[in-house]
Amino acid sequence: MNSERRAWAYLSRVVEPPCPDLAALAARVGPVEAAERVRRGAVSARVVQHTEARRDIDCAADDLDRIDRLGGRLLTPDDGDWPVLSLTSFNGVDVRRLPDGVAPMALWVLGEAAIGDVALRAAAVVGTRAATTYGEYVATDLSEGLAERDVTVVSGAAFGIDGAAHRAALAADGCTVAVLAGGVDVPYPAGHSALLHRIQRAGLVVSEYPPGVRPARHRFLVRNRLVAALSGATVVVEAGLRSGAANTAAWARALGRVVCAVPGPVTSSASAGCHVLIRQGAELITRSEEVIEIIGRAGEFADEPEHPSSPLDHLTDTGRRVYEALPARGVRSADELSVESGLPVAALQGQLALLELAGLAVQSDGRWQLARKGPPTCGERENFES
Amino acid sequence: MNSERRAWAYLSRVVEPPCPDLAALAARVGPVEAAERVRRGAVSARVVQHTEARRDIDCAADDLDRIDRLGGRLLTPDDGDWPVLSLTSFNGVDVRRLPDGVAPMALWVLGEAAIGDVALRAAAVVGTRAATTYGEYVATDLSEGLAERDVTVVSGAAFGIDGAAHRAALAADGCTVAVLAGGVDVPYPAGHSALLHRIQRAGLVVSEYPPGVRPARHRFLVRNRLVAALSGATVVVEAGLRSGAANTAAWARALGRVVCAVPGPVTSSASAGCHVLIRQGAELITRSEEVIEIIGRAGEFADEPEHPSSPLDHLTDTGRRVYEALPARGVRSADELSVESGLPVAALQGQLALLELAGLAVQSDGRWQLARKGPPTCGERENFES
Repeated sequence: MNSERRAWAYLSRVVEPPCPDLAALAARVGPVEAAERVRRGAVSARVVQHTEARRDIDCAADDLDRIDRLGGRLLTPDDGDWPVLSLTSFNGVDVRRLPDGVAPMALWVLGEAAIGDVALRAAAVVGTRAATTYGEYVATDLSEGLAERDVTVVSGAAFGIDGAAHRAALAADGCTVAVLAGGVDVPYPAGHSALLHRIQRAGLVVSEYPPGVRPARHRFLVRNRLVAALSGATVVVEAGLRSGAANTAAWARALGRVVCAVPGPVTSSASAGCHVLIRQGAELITRSEEVIEIIGRAGEFADEPEHPSSPLDHLTDTGRRVYEALPARGVRSADELSVESGLPVAALQGQLALLELAGLAVQSDGRWQLARKGPPTCGERENFES
Repeated sequence: MNSERRAWAYLSRVVEPPCPDLAALAARVGPVEAAERVRRGAVSARVVQHTEARRDIDCAADDLDRIDRLGGRLLTPDDGDWPVLSLTSFNGVDVRRLPDGVAPMALWVLGEAAIGDVALRAAAVVGTRAATTYGEYVATDLSEGLAERDVTVVSGAAFGIDGAAHRAALAADGCTVAVLAGGVDVPYPAGHSALLHRIQRAGLVVSEYPPGVRPARHRFLVRNRLVAALSGATVVVEAGLRSGAANTAAWARALGRVVCAVPGPVTSSASAGCHVLIRQGAELITRSEEVIEIIGRAGEFADEPEHPSSPLDHLTDTGRRVYEALPARGVRSADELSVESGLPVAALQGQLALLELAGLAVQSDGRWQLARKGPPTCGERENFES
């Protein structure tokens, strides 16, 4: 354990994140010098304000021991797979332009995956804990589709949508990342302890809080920025009007990520937040291909949804008018068809021949009728009304 | 019955609408002269093409008799309440810029309402005949809300969404307009005969087709432009990927009207067309107030949806961090709270005083705890996670 790592661990605990001023100081003078200055109070008034409550506590060695014993690691800006291009940016976003800063001081990580690589092809799937059966179904379906196309599913390990998203990615043998609002050794919610262990084995459990830190309300909001930052797009599956998922979406927007939301019944309060997001400009998402089109490699386009087709599709407008004029029962002469359709007899003849070839019309003694087995029968003729 | 009205009736039947060339001719030379020229074939090649099949049939007098006996009327561009500002525009839209023309030659109308007035405050509520219970519920709820705010509900009288929309407007004692794809004396669908009679009494049944004309597939598409044109906004409640409602929406867009769509479960094929419309830029609609905001008088804004509120709403971020640091059980000193929250003791004291005033924190012997009856109890503290 070298002094740099101990200094990063100290810095990670001494502030309540985010604290971009301290991160900038560490980048400028190195973590050891930054830690030393914090201890002495030899820092700017703002950094003093952020650090004086905890500067005399140094449990860095214990924290590093603890993460070692958990089989995890402390990931810092000095490490190769730190998902940051420079200390003023996180995943390529210049945090100096953001009010509160984005880059974490360091990340406490359980799991083998290289977080920098993972974040290159990742989508956040988030939503309310008070999920409906519908929401859990869609979260599962979306995450399964993403995992099958090698997209990492990032979420917050909460009950409801988050849990369904992680579980589906695991079930599809995909990679999934849980970002926690407390220490990685504080499984939260407790009911998801086993799930978090499975996530750790197949992906990553990540937190910017040192071991032992309890999740707290403001930490969920702070955590949400990392969920958004690690993902190319954030998909809100279900969210009430007041939901942390809206906060994650706001972070995604601020970070230049694409905000997506899944619609649902307007009668469901669990979809109300999604509808607000869509009205505010979020992408409406109905299936995983649409997410992949947003975050995927160039050329990964969603297939067009299949449209039901009809043999009448290939008719011209005029052809359809003639077809419509054919009687369901009995027969009509060309003159009668002309009046019915409003088309001159000369224009009719060619169309009737085409309809006959297409098996849609039958002629007998110069009089015409619908082909009996012609696909759209009388009752189906109004498929195109609203 | 004067010769002008008979000429309009003749012109209304001689072409299969829309035929903007003939409408323009009638506007230029008057209906009597236009009808005379059509009979003689003394018109442009294009108008000949459109009229030669029926130009020898003149049942105008019979048609006018028939609409009289039905208690209805033929509304023409010569009438005061013709919903047209000039013959090249319909409800203020310049139809010369539209490929197929929009203005009807004339309208056959049952019902007392003045269509020009009605169209000033109207919304189309349309959708699939294969509606789900959800779709019918939403169509009912929306249309009821519109009718209660004096907005006319325009639709196509089909089974499913259209029928639910008309019925809800009638139930709310509102005005509703059914635009038919055949003669107003050909109730379609037949199962809606009674409904159409009720619509006629409380609003209008309208068609550009003379009495006796059967609805046909292409006529539904042509009819849809009138549904869109008579409405300030078109709301698609449910529509499959292939639906006439999408056609009505396309007309609305072409006419400069606002296209709206109601979202639904992504698992419901009856909502798939709505989701496509929203992805293409249609307004996502969840309630009638949002439609009224679009088509209503200046200043009619939808109320903000009610957000669930919490006594913590009024706390600052710092106040929340202090609140979060208060123990659920037991007590903590200011020093302990300082370490837990990461805030200097000096900054804590004022926040603790505010929390005490708000009834959220209790002090005893210089040690602090959560107020027992303080509204959000321990288990509710995570309301803000995603």
